[in-house]
Amino acid sequence: MYDTRPIKASRRSEIDPFRAMDVLAEANRMIAAGEPVISLAVGQPSAPVPAKAAAAARVFLDAGQVGYTDALGRAGLRARIARHYRETYGVTVGVDRIMVTTGSSAGFNLAFLAAFDVGDRVAIASPGYPAYRNILKALGIVPVEIPVGSADGYLLTADHLAAAHREAPLAGVLVASPANPTGTVTPREELRRLVEFTDREGIAFISDEIYHGLVYGQPAASALEFSSRPIVVNSFSKYYCMTGWRIGWLVLPVPLVRAAERIGQSLYISAPELSQVAAEAVFEATDELERVKADYFRNRTTLLAALPELGFSELAPIDGAFYAYGRIPEGHGAASDLARRVLMECHVAMTPGLDFDSTDGEGFMRLSYAGAPAAIDEAVARLRSFFRQD
Amino acid sequence: MYDTRPIKASRRSEIDPFRAMDVLAEANRMIAAGEPVISLAVGQPSAPVPAKAAAAARVFLDAGQVGYTDALGRAGLRARIARHYRETYGVTVGVDRIMVTTGSSAGFNLAFLAAFDVGDRVAIASPGYPAYRNILKALGIVPVEIPVGSADGYLLTADHLAAAHREAPLAGVLVASPANPTGTVTPREELRRLVEFTDREGIAFISDEIYHGLVYGQPAASALEFSSRPIVVNSFSKYYCMTGWRIGWLVLPVPLVRAAERIGQSLYISAPELSQVAAEAVFEATDELERVKADYFRNRTTLLAALPELGFSELAPIDGAFYAYGRIPEGHGAASDLARRVLMECHVAMTPGLDFDSTDGEGFMRLSYAGAPAAIDEAVARLRSFFRQD
Repeated sequence: MYDTRPIKASRRSEIDPFRAMDVLAEANRMIAAGEPVISLAVGQPSAPVPAKAAAAARVFLDAGQVGYTDALGRAGLRARIARHYRETYGVTVGVDRIMVTTGSSAGFNLAFLAAFDVGDRVAIASPGYPAYRNILKALGIVPVEIPVGSADGYLLTADHLAAAHREAPLAGVLVASPANPTGTVTPREELRRLVEFTDREGIAFISDEIYHGLVYGQPAASALEFSSRPIVVNSFSKYYCMTGWRIGWLVLPVPLVRAAERIGQSLYISAPELSQVAAEAVFEATDELERVKADYFRNRTTLLAALPELGFSELAPIDGAFYAYGRIPEGHGAASDLARRVLMECHVAMTPGLDFDSTDGEGFMRLSYAGAPAAIDEAVARLRSFFRQD
Repeated sequence: MYDTRPIKASRRSEIDPFRAMDVLAEANRMIAAGEPVISLAVGQPSAPVPAKAAAAARVFLDAGQVGYTDALGRAGLRARIARHYRETYGVTVGVDRIMVTTGSSAGFNLAFLAAFDVGDRVAIASPGYPAYRNILKALGIVPVEIPVGSADGYLLTADHLAAAHREAPLAGVLVASPANPTGTVTPREELRRLVEFTDREGIAFISDEIYHGLVYGQPAASALEFSSRPIVVNSFSKYYCMTGWRIGWLVLPVPLVRAAERIGQSLYISAPELSQVAAEAVFEATDELERVKADYFRNRTTLLAALPELGFSELAPIDGAFYAYGRIPEGHGAASDLARRVLMECHVAMTPGLDFDSTDGEGFMRLSYAGAPAAIDEAVARLRSFFRQD
């Protein structure tokens, strides 16, 4: 035998874990071992894929030819997405600006690679979706975290952005509305101010619109209503109940289309074809999807009543998406310890706040209410007995 | 209205296109317009997904719950892949070292991000698969292209590697066996020398084994037969006929597993679940897959006879995979012009060599013979009449 040198991971792989995924893996191990786990940890609808989407996938599968598609996606799906912008927002988006992606995960990666170089500064809200920070870091981009809190409804504003840009020039900003984990919906006029500020300053505006459709008050505005300059990231995972299909889309400004296409050709080849076929059909499943959304609304009401009783405070607004986020009851230690104990003792999986907020996250917890109402009711009952005896 | 700043693509997005994908998009447009295009451009089996895999997908789809999986993949598929290593190579690979990926595309991206930092030098053969070079560049890694040619069977050797490492230290090397576009299979003893050299020197060894199973002589050795240090990238796209499902896997050395898992959690969430289910079943479809492979062998014989007659020279060995690669006949200009003329005039799509070799590629062409024998015969007939009258 010869001397073998040790293996070293790259420095850039030293990003935070996505703790919700670690909780999911742990919950899956417990479920496989027969434990009655209820998961409020992952942002995943428990409702099945709508029947029309499954039927379209079945027909395509029976024909037998599932192959690579154009890197930008199947022509029919791209045209259907363009129609969606006309019908939902009254905005005309050319089919040539639409790129089908392997979930919004691929959308973020492609948008970041097409728009930013190593060392560029990109503003994001904190708390916010952890993959933003993690992907940016892995790509050598500097996330500039702008703290938002319960006092201002967890809202990232144009004033915040201008202040960060004065400190040192920003190359981009990423705004999610509705936001994860807070459910905050950016009011239409504030979104307009944000877009106009970035248009004027030459900052790339990435608009995460993956929770559109899941809003419990005024519908969320699209950044494309104000300008053709933003990059919009969207997904079939949330409103459309297609998480495991890994399918989403980008709307790109014209000068970035070929850049994103080139990177997509090498980095993804194409999005899964069966998922593209099912996604085109899911636009016709509105009746079924609105029934699912009615369940979320019921779950939201349940949690808004229960969480303060359990001792949670500083609750985020929950105007949209399907998460409750708030400060954990006092006297239970750090949120990550509490999450572990709750999972072990009463088999309810939740996501500790450190995923979303690396500064204050250990005081916060996120509960996804995308499950069936009976499961949410049962989870609340278990949490009630946990906090009573703890 | 206000003044809007122009939008600029990043410098790192200025990578080459994957020209085979551009040809695919053009061919798809022509097919949609009713043109009788035969595509030899993309490395994609024309055979449908094996019946057992489709059946498993159908059963899972009927149950309705298609969701996120663990970032490392479904437990059943990971265990089945581990069994594959015992049965095929006589190698024991722990399930914990196996990560299911969204095609080998995700495998390469995860391997590069987990092992390399910005500025690291990674050796690859030229001609070679263009996505290696393109992904490496987009991630700020420096591809070190080692020219290999017809005189040495297009083989990258340990001697080549040692020379490149003496010039300036390498952080990694990527070796494909069988290789794309040349079909070169690295002989077992040469592969051992390559692995041992990298083990001794502390160089990361990435072994692209996506064409394993498609070998027409001695079976290809896995890098894992010699060491547990290499990173192996594999895929269900080629031998297993599952391109459009976007599903593959990595075998990682233990110190890189958590790094790859962390990046995967944020960058991919998980591979498509329906594809994972189908992939587990496709291991039982050997009879069907061997019949498909017999067609490739017949196509290979057809091309090996026809191409020299048509004036192609310096043919690559074609020991494995399903590509013919060689120098184009004289007097037809650059390969990319020739490919365009052949597509327009006789509706046969091929991939110009510039994808694979940025230095000498305009003298070469790649023809994929993963189609049905009747289609290959018809393509050869069309090429014959093209070159006769041209």
